[in-house]
Amino acid sequence: MTAAHEAQIRVSEIFGPTIQGEGILIGLPTVFVRTGGCDYRCSWCDTLHAVDSDYRDQWRPMSADEIWQEVSRLSGNRPLTVSLSGGNPAIQPLGTLIKRGHRDGYRFALETQGSIAKDWFADLDVLVLSPKPPSSGMETDWDAFDTCLRMAGEKPQIALKVVVFDDRDYLYAQAAAARYPDLPVYLQPGNHTPPPPNDDDARVDIDGIMDRMLWLVDKVTGDRWFEARVLPQLHVLLWGNKRGV
Amino acid sequence: MTAAHEAQIRVSEIFGPTIQGEGILIGLPTVFVRTGGCDYRCSWCDTLHAVDSDYRDQWRPMSADEIWQEVSRLSGNRPLTVSLSGGNPAIQPLGTLIKRGHRDGYRFALETQGSIAKDWFADLDVLVLSPKPPSSGMETDWDAFDTCLRMAGEKPQIALKVVVFDDRDYLYAQAAAARYPDLPVYLQPGNHTPPPPNDDDARVDIDGIMDRMLWLVDKVTGDRWFEARVLPQLHVLLWGNKRGV
Repeated sequence: MTAAHEAQIRVSEIFGPTIQGEGILIGLPTVFVRTGGCDYRCSWCDTLHAVDSDYRDQWRPMSADEIWQEVSRLSGNRPLTVSLSGGNPAIQPLGTLIKRGHRDGYRFALETQGSIAKDWFADLDVLVLSPKPPSSGMETDWDAFDTCLRMAGEKPQIALKVVVFDDRDYLYAQAAAARYPDLPVYLQPGNHTPPPPNDDDARVDIDGIMDRMLWLVDKVTGDRWFEARVLPQLHVLLWGNKRGV
Repeated sequence: MTAAHEAQIRVSEIFGPTIQGEGILIGLPTVFVRTGGCDYRCSWCDTLHAVDSDYRDQWRPMSADEIWQEVSRLSGNRPLTVSLSGGNPAIQPLGTLIKRGHRDGYRFALETQGSIAKDWFADLDVLVLSPKPPSSGMETDWDAFDTCLRMAGEKPQIALKVVVFDDRDYLYAQAAAARYPDLPVYLQPGNHTPPPPNDDDARVDIDGIMDRMLWLVDKVTGDRWFEARVLPQLHVLLWGNKRGV
């Protein structure tokens, strides 16, 4: 395997600019670079097309330069925030891409579950750590999570984001927040109608999501958990399960 | 008029905790202290019950201590963010209330159009300045607005929030943002179906608001205005025009 080959990044999709739909950067114009492949397989994954290896033939190996050309084109060479998401983008060699973009004044946010740490986390502008609650069917490796935080160090703005479907998830979110009292926490009602891969038109139960949102607001205010922010996925409210927006 | 009388605050409603529905603190559990009275009369005002003097008999003069008792009760004596809104809360003598709350570890955000400045702005934790665009029918006094910023000084986190109904409003928002390049800007699609005072059940055209939201996202991304955040009024999506949530 040559060095050039090692530097290839598996890309599921690049799209935008659109607004960031969730978490700490909600509402901010963003270009998304979604990588393919994940070490997790959450029961309610809403990006299976970037996770399930059945869709691997849709993932394109690209160099940092090729990705950068596309991001530059989409943004008209005007600096903005690039969201590196997945799948789990921490699997990919993204350090060169981030350095390249920083040279042009762009900012980078990474969204990951915190299962795999990379030294280039330290170059990020924003790191969103999204540990997966019990309803996902996954187990959190808190040592790996701590390593992500250590690797990120002092430069990036760091936030926790936890998807909450039910009471067990909520307790998990509280425990996660208690582990990291200095990190801002964002709670997000889960989408129990995630899109099947390659089906933009699949029905989304917005009313059900909004009911879960209301339940979550009641939980947080009833428990006087006044540090947690509760935000829906705005892009789902605006565009349903449609991809590329 | 005695000193005690001068310190009375005209209160339209105190409610919460619920989540902040808009702008820089979106999603954050908050108790709202809505004061009565306004020097503006925006055509699309969505809180006429706190603006129109026809509803003045519903505004209760309260001392800072009385308000503080109610905020403490609602929050179970647990510190959170208090949003001072209106009407225009800058009309009221809120300095004592803020000092009182700070003693207990609470934080204060003020939401005002920026037409009236007070020295106690400097004690705020967050100042949201929301200049009103042409569709409101109001004229912005930028000198008064600058005075608000000067009074606030270095301590508060300051953000601009502009409601946008149409192209003229959008151009106004761009000009406002250009005047204050260091301030974060939040754009908010207007609600063209604001509640008549005292009618919780009045119909809200959520689809129309979401259409305006999509239009605004397209404008911002199309113009490559990548610093502006676009956020809807979450409370309207969740609760319509209902009061007290």
